[in-house]
Amino acid sequence: MQFRKRQGETTVTPPEDHDAGLYFIGRIHTPWSDRNDCPRQGRPDGPECRIEIFPPWVDAIEGIDRFERLEILYWLDRSRRDLVRQNPKADGQRFFGTFALRSPQRPNPIGTSVVRLDRIEGPNLFVRGLDCLDGTPLIDIKPDRCAFTPQAPPKPADSPGGP
Amino acid sequence: MQFRKRQGETTVTPPEDHDAGLYFIGRIHTPWSDRNDCPRQGRPDGPECRIEIFPPWVDAIEGIDRFERLEILYWLDRSRRDLVRQNPKADGQRFFGTFALRSPQRPNPIGTSVVRLDRIEGPNLFVRGLDCLDGTPLIDIKPDRCAFTPQAPPKPADSPGGP
Repeated sequence: MQFRKRQGETTVTPPEDHDAGLYFIGRIHTPWSDRNDCPRQGRPDGPECRIEIFPPWVDAIEGIDRFERLEILYWLDRSRRDLVRQNPKADGQRFFGTFALRSPQRPNPIGTSVVRLDRIEGPNLFVRGLDCLDGTPLIDIKPDRCAFTPQAPPKPADSPGGP
Repeated sequence: MQFRKRQGETTVTPPEDHDAGLYFIGRIHTPWSDRNDCPRQGRPDGPECRIEIFPPWVDAIEGIDRFERLEILYWLDRSRRDLVRQNPKADGQRFFGTFALRSPQRPNPIGTSVVRLDRIEGPNLFVRGLDCLDGTPLIDIKPDRCAFTPQAPPKPADSPGGP
């Protein structure tokens, strides 16, 4: 299932080779199995979704329950990667560069969302705030930067006027 | 240059094969050429950094000047990817799962920052708020989700109580 290019949208030929490789570290289970049903953006009061962590990464969630808000990165595996100018309203009128949009169609189709962590059961995190299709591959989980105080001590560059 | 594992930290053997591939779409130029000089987290009043966009992706920045705040994704290419439990203070006392940290050492070492866009010159964006090493590969740029109103019309799942 590939997204169709719309009239007037600009594509480029991506490089032949990849520069780095990703591991799918889990899978995201949501209520949306069709692109048209997904919200444009997740909501903190949206439906509960399940993030399943695959072995061998399950031990990496230790201590994650200290955070109410998590940043989730996922791979938008049904996106096209060659669009540089898009027409999001499909009206043939206004075009935007891909980097001026949060569209799933982008050279590296990585989605990011901030979610609320409801609960943890074994290798599963139950969260609210996602917007992606059911079955989307998970690539990272981090504490939300707003909520996070680094555990390691500050360095000179962390001070105002630091290097 | 690989980060050394600290005593008591837990590693796993990552899968043999990657599941997806990334393109490096640009390069980030910062004042920090040594890991110890980087801030732990970028600051909006930090030094100006330059994000250089590579061809063929330069046209994708069209319209990006409408946004003061951008989300930047980059590849932490000098990180190790096999740590699941880390000891960020290097004190041998407190260990945290990798997903409960924003450490650069993670299975998919993608950094995310929100930056302030100062100006654009050709294929270069000048921004403040980064925390990464000079030369870090760029993988995506998006309008910050807080600042962004989707261009495409809302869908039913965007409403409270929506599907």
